[in-house]
Amino acid sequence: MPLHAHHDPTGSPLPAHDFYDVLHRRRDVRAEFTGEELPPEVLRRVLTAAHAAPSVGLSQPWDFLLVRDETTRRAFREHVLAERSVFAAQLDTAQAETFARIKIEGILESSVGLVVSYDPDRGSPAVLGRHAIADAGLYSVCLAIQNLWLAATAEGLGVGWVSFYREDFLRRLLALPSRLRPVAWLCVGPVRHLQETPDLERHGWRKRLPLDDVVHYERYGQRPPR
Amino acid sequence: MPLHAHHDPTGSPLPAHDFYDVLHRRRDVRAEFTGEELPPEVLRRVLTAAHAAPSVGLSQPWDFLLVRDETTRRAFREHVLAERSVFAAQLDTAQAETFARIKIEGILESSVGLVVSYDPDRGSPAVLGRHAIADAGLYSVCLAIQNLWLAATAEGLGVGWVSFYREDFLRRLLALPSRLRPVAWLCVGPVRHLQETPDLERHGWRKRLPLDDVVHYERYGQRPPR
Repeated sequence: MPLHAHHDPTGSPLPAHDFYDVLHRRRDVRAEFTGEELPPEVLRRVLTAAHAAPSVGLSQPWDFLLVRDETTRRAFREHVLAERSVFAAQLDTAQAETFARIKIEGILESSVGLVVSYDPDRGSPAVLGRHAIADAGLYSVCLAIQNLWLAATAEGLGVGWVSFYREDFLRRLLALPSRLRPVAWLCVGPVRHLQETPDLERHGWRKRLPLDDVVHYERYGQRPPR
Repeated sequence: MPLHAHHDPTGSPLPAHDFYDVLHRRRDVRAEFTGEELPPEVLRRVLTAAHAAPSVGLSQPWDFLLVRDETTRRAFREHVLAERSVFAAQLDTAQAETFARIKIEGILESSVGLVVSYDPDRGSPAVLGRHAIADAGLYSVCLAIQNLWLAATAEGLGVGWVSFYREDFLRRLLALPSRLRPVAWLCVGPVRHLQETPDLERHGWRKRLPLDDVVHYERYGQRPPR
């Protein structure tokens, strides 16, 4: 069943579902992209959502690069497949068999590659809230990515985060200034459907943990008070 | 005007607003906490939302520590105020005047401190998607934080991320194992209202950038194709 956002006749967005529905429907997509063109107004809403994320010192230290060029995408995919082999070589036999069944990217099948990078110079030198934690700017970029991911889900799109790459490769491929750090290559586009269960769980790589395993009270390792 | 989620008579959640409304209403809260108790079922939904975030290799490398104890909160606040002075000392006169007007934390006024940390051992050694980018696990933790932040907003709560602290201080305060990295202290709780404009913009610290400043086409710095 395709998941599409509904639109009213005036053209304003009417997301198909409520907040929690969007949040829990979101998946990391590999195999379900249709490759259809992304309507510009949908892409705009998704980028606007990313850009509305909180950021340390209001630095908004992100950049969004839209990659449609097929030569660029093919070059990135070749690199990703090589890195896939690097990882596969580290696995024991049972893990390697499971991993062989898992698709790790939809770079060519998705509608657009959306690269998100971190610019530490944005708002510097005095970035309010970053003097004690240098990575706080990097954290902000991730918040923008999650806004983007959820907005795309609300629009009936899929997003797949590819992380099998070396940052320097992507920096060179996209002419990123050396101070910039690529944080994600996101495959984005319409999907036939979203899986109910995360791919890695469906394929037996790993199971999701119960929430109670990761909640602590007052101090690490303490159970809830009576 | 207080923003509360509506509940139907059966007790199931009916978020008050649609997805984009929640996303754009979200603010980084300092001054608007009421200190009211958080209903356990609301806290549970918010933590469940965080725990539903995507993570590299399905590693779910986050922990959530709920801090209500006033002694702990006071100790953290003292540390934060000392770090505030460290930052203030780095500013020029004009910046220092602006900064003096800005409240940076609501540690005691919020209902609960929610500390989110990163555990690199979760799912290791072979974390799928992390061999080339060591920080990918840290990124996952941030995605969980944004899920949490938006869910809290949908529930009519406020969240304020405090980052004026040294990681080692928080590690000791909360007995975090040395491998764990604290990523955020989030002040969470009901609020009188949410500001329309981010605090740092209201107080003249920094203005939000136009979206088009941070969008690139095919390569960094390239404008959209005609």
